[in-house]
Amino acid sequence: MATRAEGRLRVVGLGPGPAEWLTEEARRAIDAAEHVIGYYTYLSRIPDLAGKVVHGSDNRDELARAQHGLELASRGESVVIVSGGDPGVFGMAAAVFEALEQRPELRSLDVEVVPGVTAMLAAAARLGAPLGNDFCALNLSDNLKPWSLIERRLTLAAQADFVIALYNPASLARSQQVHEAFATLRRHRPPSTIVVFAHAVGSKEEELRVTRLDEADPAAADMRTLVIIGAEATRSIARPGGVPWVYTPRRIDG
Amino acid sequence: MATRAEGRLRVVGLGPGPAEWLTEEARRAIDAAEHVIGYYTYLSRIPDLAGKVVHGSDNRDELARAQHGLELASRGESVVIVSGGDPGVFGMAAAVFEALEQRPELRSLDVEVVPGVTAMLAAAARLGAPLGNDFCALNLSDNLKPWSLIERRLTLAAQADFVIALYNPASLARSQQVHEAFATLRRHRPPSTIVVFAHAVGSKEEELRVTRLDEADPAAADMRTLVIIGAEATRSIARPGGVPWVYTPRRIDG
Repeated sequence: MATRAEGRLRVVGLGPGPAEWLTEEARRAIDAAEHVIGYYTYLSRIPDLAGKVVHGSDNRDELARAQHGLELASRGESVVIVSGGDPGVFGMAAAVFEALEQRPELRSLDVEVVPGVTAMLAAAARLGAPLGNDFCALNLSDNLKPWSLIERRLTLAAQADFVIALYNPASLARSQQVHEAFATLRRHRPPSTIVVFAHAVGSKEEELRVTRLDEADPAAADMRTLVIIGAEATRSIARPGGVPWVYTPRRIDG
Repeated sequence: MATRAEGRLRVVGLGPGPAEWLTEEARRAIDAAEHVIGYYTYLSRIPDLAGKVVHGSDNRDELARAQHGLELASRGESVVIVSGGDPGVFGMAAAVFEALEQRPELRSLDVEVVPGVTAMLAAAARLGAPLGNDFCALNLSDNLKPWSLIERRLTLAAQADFVIALYNPASLARSQQVHEAFATLRRHRPPSTIVVFAHAVGSKEEELRVTRLDEADPAAADMRTLVIIGAEATRSIARPGGVPWVYTPRRIDG
């Protein structure tokens, strides 16, 4: 199939919740598209879909969605694939490039990624500045990688004293692993380490819990929760009328 | 000094460059403020400062700027402190909470952090999806932490096979350490590891270089460069008319 020059694909980050976390570039990319592909949950966040062909999906096959987007673009259509948060962080962008690698004849397509605010940045903003020093982001789902690798990364990240943001800590089908992850963290981090459960940040169900590693109940994490494990220097400050502020100082004395 | 209820402080992320990377919330927070505090470089990115009291600064004392913002807010003023990228990632938010911890009498002030797109997300978007799997963000400046800690974190991050984003790899006064950092990385990662130098993403001087760990010249990094070191699985794909796409697959086989 010939690639028509006018076809294009934008992989767009919607931010973690409300429309006010959308960037101007993301809004324009969506406005300019004829086709919008994404999870129903994410589609419902888009302010205006009037006049567009909407390809909603409730399946988890990101690769199929990416292939669909490339296919439409190769026929000359203007397409956006939307992702919650930032598409490059455990979102749709990697799936799109995986699909593109499989289809060398589509590489001349006009493809761009439009960045967004990823969940850990929004959760961190609500809490203060827990990511204020070196940190890592780890996807706790073993759907696509072996649990042994996740355990190894957790251990080394804990030893490195990174602040650790855990994406996808649990789901209905995967509720046990967050308990194993906490057991690993407790072996390598002090009991007083600050732990945060940030649930559904940006939505009406938003809930923040600030606790300690020895008191944290891993069952508090579900599929809409981002977990942040503090570094040794991470501190909390009482905040009148809310959960404590949490921040990690910029300075670490040697 | 009594705290007037109407005083407020917003710590706002401008995103890494152009105004189109500003979120709606950030734009509104700036619009609503009477006072704007920040580096001259960041202030120049703000679309409209008319009618505001602008407190530009070229000094590097973030804590003094944070204290100034809290002080103004405690007098009932409406203040924003702006940061490039996201204020919670090596930006102004940690300094604000450090200042707030020192001044318990100011804790009832109305303080909020407004998240933004941090530099590594914008650089990643330009490249494809290099952060498509687990990653860490490490500030290479030893102005506020010992170099031995940076070396230790680099080593453990390399052993964990994280994608590594290096912020502040070099400056005029600090040009040698990025060479030491690369020497450390070369001890723990294969020669073929993909390395990216993303310079001034979002500006007219934007320049992307994609190379390998054994061929990378650390001197290519300056104070406007974000460096990304791929994981073992990170791949590149030829892109007609540009640097190769770089992405890290979601799937890692055990």
